[in-house]
Amino acid sequence: MLIEVHVLARLKGFQELVRVEDALEKWLAAIEFHPNSTSVPLLTAQNRVLSSHIIANTDLPRTDRSAVDGYAVKAAETIGASQSKPKIFKLNERDAIGPNQAKQIWTGNTIPENADAVVMLENTKTVGKILEVWSPTTRWENVSRKGEDIKKGEIAVKTGTRLKPHHLGIIAAFGMSEVEVFQKPKVAVLATGNEIIRVGDKIRENKVFDSNRVVLTALCNELGAEVIDLGIARDDMEEISQKLNNGLRRADAVMTSGGTSVGGPDLVPEVAARIGKPGILVHGVAMRPGMPTGLAVVGKKPIILLPGNPVAVMLSFEVFGRPLISRMLGLQATESRPVLMARTKRKISTTLGRKNLVRVHVSREKGEFIADPISARGSSLFSTMTRSNGYVIVPENQEGLAEGEMVAVNMFEDLKVGEDDV
Amino acid sequence: MLIEVHVLARLKGFQELVRVEDALEKWLAAIEFHPNSTSVPLLTAQNRVLSSHIIANTDLPRTDRSAVDGYAVKAAETIGASQSKPKIFKLNERDAIGPNQAKQIWTGNTIPENADAVVMLENTKTVGKILEVWSPTTRWENVSRKGEDIKKGEIAVKTGTRLKPHHLGIIAAFGMSEVEVFQKPKVAVLATGNEIIRVGDKIRENKVFDSNRVVLTALCNELGAEVIDLGIARDDMEEISQKLNNGLRRADAVMTSGGTSVGGPDLVPEVAARIGKPGILVHGVAMRPGMPTGLAVVGKKPIILLPGNPVAVMLSFEVFGRPLISRMLGLQATESRPVLMARTKRKISTTLGRKNLVRVHVSREKGEFIADPISARGSSLFSTMTRSNGYVIVPENQEGLAEGEMVAVNMFEDLKVGEDDV
Repeated sequence: MLIEVHVLARLKGFQELVRVEDALEKWLAAIEFHPNSTSVPLLTAQNRVLSSHIIANTDLPRTDRSAVDGYAVKAAETIGASQSKPKIFKLNERDAIGPNQAKQIWTGNTIPENADAVVMLENTKTVGKILEVWSPTTRWENVSRKGEDIKKGEIAVKTGTRLKPHHLGIIAAFGMSEVEVFQKPKVAVLATGNEIIRVGDKIRENKVFDSNRVVLTALCNELGAEVIDLGIARDDMEEISQKLNNGLRRADAVMTSGGTSVGGPDLVPEVAARIGKPGILVHGVAMRPGMPTGLAVVGKKPIILLPGNPVAVMLSFEVFGRPLISRMLGLQATESRPVLMARTKRKISTTLGRKNLVRVHVSREKGEFIADPISARGSSLFSTMTRSNGYVIVPENQEGLAEGEMVAVNMFEDLKVGEDDV
Repeated sequence: MLIEVHVLARLKGFQELVRVEDALEKWLAAIEFHPNSTSVPLLTAQNRVLSSHIIANTDLPRTDRSAVDGYAVKAAETIGASQSKPKIFKLNERDAIGPNQAKQIWTGNTIPENADAVVMLENTKTVGKILEVWSPTTRWENVSRKGEDIKKGEIAVKTGTRLKPHHLGIIAAFGMSEVEVFQKPKVAVLATGNEIIRVGDKIRENKVFDSNRVVLTALCNELGAEVIDLGIARDDMEEISQKLNNGLRRADAVMTSGGTSVGGPDLVPEVAARIGKPGILVHGVAMRPGMPTGLAVVGKKPIILLPGNPVAVMLSFEVFGRPLISRMLGLQATESRPVLMARTKRKISTTLGRKNLVRVHVSREKGEFIADPISARGSSLFSTMTRSNGYVIVPENQEGLAEGEMVAVNMFEDLKVGEDDV
């Protein structure tokens, strides 16, 4: 009952609340994505997104190589070998072996010409230049065949891959010192509100520090976007308009925080509606928190109008900012946070008809991951952000989560675990 | 049977294989960890590790603030209000209200003196300077009380926390523009082997590109360590020794790859044993892959001697490099990779008595995470690194994994998911 009144109340100022999926689809469809390519040195490509396939320029391994320390031989010549009746080979140090010859070889070395197997050290004995082989081997035993790992011309790493250490490793194995990646998208970030002052300034009465711009900058950086700082705009149509225009000129996308509700000083949606075509596409989304979020497009460039409260900023960024930046980065799909399956510690009620993002704290108890919902009266509570380490999405058609239910938690932080827990 | 032979074979050159936990404990105990603190600007502190608690320098909120758009009133004066019998208030624009006065207020504003509740806009009507209130409110309703989020003097973020966007947000809310973090640990990386050439050089017969140094550098960077590049040493005692010494002078830790087995050109353990005290503590670990790993300490500084094969390098780094760097960073515990619980797609055999790191590819099938083990003949197969996106640890006392078993996968990559999967 209380919740319903609250919903009605909040609804009042908005014409209608748009479903998250519908809002996202409508908005993304109006944006032009055209990430450009650039060539960067291999190691600086870490975490960047590949803009063209890495095609194997050679077979890997390049040659037939020994997989062990031992002796390269012709397999057929070892047939019948045993400890009591060893086969005898003459040792040779050249790049080819003749009949009944063997060559000592270390892991990774190319096997000599005419050899087709490697006998492991421990199945042999040497006496001067003579090698005794104690057990038979088969063709290509202990040999990594040329191209068995990757064949020349194969796609080794696909376009749209975010490059992690192991990808860099395989690119290095081809000897490529430069790679083609998508340029970093530029996102301009603006905070709005007469009450907002810069971090580092002296606090004055009724003022609050601009934490939203810091969080948005950090979230963009985390995904690999480059942030352009537009500073703080007062609740003034002219000032907001000028700063938004500045952002649209310099960046590929603009994010604002504050002034998105329907109260007196909530001017950002009005500015976004007037600043260019098509203007504001969505204002008011069926989600909690983050309901007063607005989505605009001006000259094919996206603007996200985020609410002023810090928790809504973070979670609305997850819902709209993350898919946006994933596309701007050139990724094939939205990159999720690490997802952990966990069991809810207790029941949580949510609002039907809204996509609810429930903050939780996940810990490991007796080998199981437990998600404890963080209760918070206001969505502006900072402490709930640091007490939670992830969030669970409760869809529109679901009224809360039961106790003991398995849920997918989107993690804000990496877990710390002892060896036993891994 | 084949596996047993293989184990025996491998064992031959090593005195004994040390259990991973024992090796790690012995090694870490011989290292001196003393990360120093440094002060950095807030935004550059992202992903760094906090070296002293963030103590709240103020209550948050700083004042009693409105949680909604509406009118600040004295709650007692609204008793009995209804739509048919509204209570009447006189509107006032000052910082204090008198009897039967109200003040219009927006979300986040400090409530005026004498007010103790906020009536939401939609439960009111204004006629000129007169406000009708249609429903009663209770004390502190729709008010965020001073300090209800965080109280002055409380620990807001703990020492040893890796700073994520939400942590930066709360620090910003206190107006702090600088934070104390631990200095980045310096790790020197050396590749060894006559066959190794630099990425970017022209390939020559029987040579392989130095992918291990690239992977190790990227893995260290990923965790937040600074890498000092020691280049490549040939299989020569003098050269390895000189480069190791150089690394120990300039860095807090050294990692080498290659030359750790017991074959002819495997000189690194010998150098590490001679270079200083206590020297090599462990050589040969009961794990797969990564068995020929060596762990040394010289002058309280750690050296990890990693094998030459690329997959063993990565996984041995996970087992030894990750806990080491976690401590060097000042973290309270080893930071794990994102862990995903998944169901095995098929049975995997592993070697009893070894800690097996089984590479898997995790995907989402019908709402469930499925881990498909990547089979690989040799641990040097590059393609298995890019085909897998995580690994499962099978402990020493367990012989493989059954089909359909739930396992914890340590993820190398973030998952890509469509909206429906989140």
